[in-house]
Amino acid sequence: MADLILALDFGGTKLTAAVLRASALRTESPNWQAKQRVFTPSDADARYELTTMIELGHALLGDEKPLAVGVSFGGPVNYATGTVRLSHHVPGWREFPLQERLEAAFAASARVDNDANVAALGEWRLGAGQDVDTLFYITVSTGVGGGLILQGRPWRGYEGMAGEIGHTVVAPDGPMCLCGKRGCVERLASGPYMAHDYRTQLQAAQGRPPKGAITGKSVAEAAANGEPIALGILRRGAWALGVGIGNVANLINPQRFVLGGGVTKAGVLWWDEVRRAARETAMAEVHFDVVPARYADDAPLWGAVALVEELV
Amino acid sequence: MADLILALDFGGTKLTAAVLRASALRTESPNWQAKQRVFTPSDADARYELTTMIELGHALLGDEKPLAVGVSFGGPVNYATGTVRLSHHVPGWREFPLQERLEAAFAASARVDNDANVAALGEWRLGAGQDVDTLFYITVSTGVGGGLILQGRPWRGYEGMAGEIGHTVVAPDGPMCLCGKRGCVERLASGPYMAHDYRTQLQAAQGRPPKGAITGKSVAEAAANGEPIALGILRRGAWALGVGIGNVANLINPQRFVLGGGVTKAGVLWWDEVRRAARETAMAEVHFDVVPARYADDAPLWGAVALVEELV
Repeated sequence: MADLILALDFGGTKLTAAVLRASALRTESPNWQAKQRVFTPSDADARYELTTMIELGHALLGDEKPLAVGVSFGGPVNYATGTVRLSHHVPGWREFPLQERLEAAFAASARVDNDANVAALGEWRLGAGQDVDTLFYITVSTGVGGGLILQGRPWRGYEGMAGEIGHTVVAPDGPMCLCGKRGCVERLASGPYMAHDYRTQLQAAQGRPPKGAITGKSVAEAAANGEPIALGILRRGAWALGVGIGNVANLINPQRFVLGGGVTKAGVLWWDEVRRAARETAMAEVHFDVVPARYADDAPLWGAVALVEELV
Repeated sequence: MADLILALDFGGTKLTAAVLRASALRTESPNWQAKQRVFTPSDADARYELTTMIELGHALLGDEKPLAVGVSFGGPVNYATGTVRLSHHVPGWREFPLQERLEAAFAASARVDNDANVAALGEWRLGAGQDVDTLFYITVSTGVGGGLILQGRPWRGYEGMAGEIGHTVVAPDGPMCLCGKRGCVERLASGPYMAHDYRTQLQAAQGRPPKGAITGKSVAEAAANGEPIALGILRRGAWALGVGIGNVANLINPQRFVLGGGVTKAGVLWWDEVRRAARETAMAEVHFDVVPARYADDAPLWGAVALVEELV
């Protein structure tokens, strides 16, 4: 008897497929039946990714037909039609009817949404937001993205563009972002931008380029060791995110903020400053907590399951 | 036959009651059957306001029992219980069971919500938002408040505190607000704060206090005449509001922003700058329009009607 849900995650650099028995969703800690991840070559296009993902899915399913296919996509998606709007990383995805193609390939209903919305749903249904109705999920990583769950349902906005906390402005006199604005949260709080600013400031202080690769992680490590330049950059990033969170609290009044992504591993200094700035920015009458995500890489996969749960 | 809806608006300085025939809601431009407004003395307390409002209501209703009572209150409200949390202007309202008292006084069901949520609902149901599903309403007046309509229903937040765009921070190095934060939208964009800054800057420029009373309106008038200090202050207020609007667009992605309140009468200069800053702050993929409210003083009353429409 068919009992498998297929979950697919189209990431910027990797493709992941996993299958779950639907009956497992009624247990306290559901586990994957099987999961497989492949890294995509840098010249991959949409056709390559789709073909690879369909092969992964069929390999995991064996001869079984899935009950439904839930999909996380790393870029803007029109949820209503199941069409990818575009990918910033991989060519060929513009206006791509992903839901339709997957429904044909697996002979089952599919639902497609962007990774931030799906991860928010995963954390709400099975992760750090299980006991609240309303949460804002933020991933702080290469970029800063967000997803909003209102009374147990994703709020996608009128065009599916809601949740973009990374592109809210918190420091209009701050440094310029690639998005064309100054002082948006992503410009100050994302890993690559913190690394960029650390490189620049180290070079200015030492008169020569720093040795070795500098990443968001090295900023966090140097800050943990008390290196003052790194400390300043990490604190400013945490502050910017905290102001963004406080602004969201005043506007939307969610019960909880769930934070995932590599930068959230930066340590207690970072968390303290995020929470302090968020609390200071929010009105006294507005209450919320700020907690780490339960899932790291798997949040979009679990969310993809939650996306189709009502279909099975 | 009973056919009257009673709408009540508890404002900071005035009380308004109005009655509408329910059948009028099925016409294109419903009109009040009768309306009455009284100004409250500066020493009024909650008991005085409630008694006065009940008298106004009975006077308008004559012998008729209303179908329902919709209420706008100028302060935070717990919508679920119909309890006023507090009033910043009038003593005695803390944790006041307003819905219960009005239901007893009029022998009809009542619903109570804060003025910004109610005005948002009024503009959505009968005003400038009639043709959209999802809008953000902003009143720019003595303060800057907001209300959010998602798919035709108010989004109040987990504690009923959503919509507070006035207390989002857009200029963290800006001037200090009474709320304890620097550079929140209200500090820069509200009428009294613009007037305050104009007085201060005029005095600094002229070496003596300016003659006569300076209000938000005088700043707008002086700016329209090209007076450079007033122009700078009005532009900065409009810019701050525009950044706040752009941030909301990125976070919530509503289809429309509806702006009401005295400051929105400041003229084309102000509107142009609000729209420019909002457009510049929002992501390129995020679309919305920014339009004037249809109702001035009456938005909360029409919203109070909409609040109970499903009960009648």
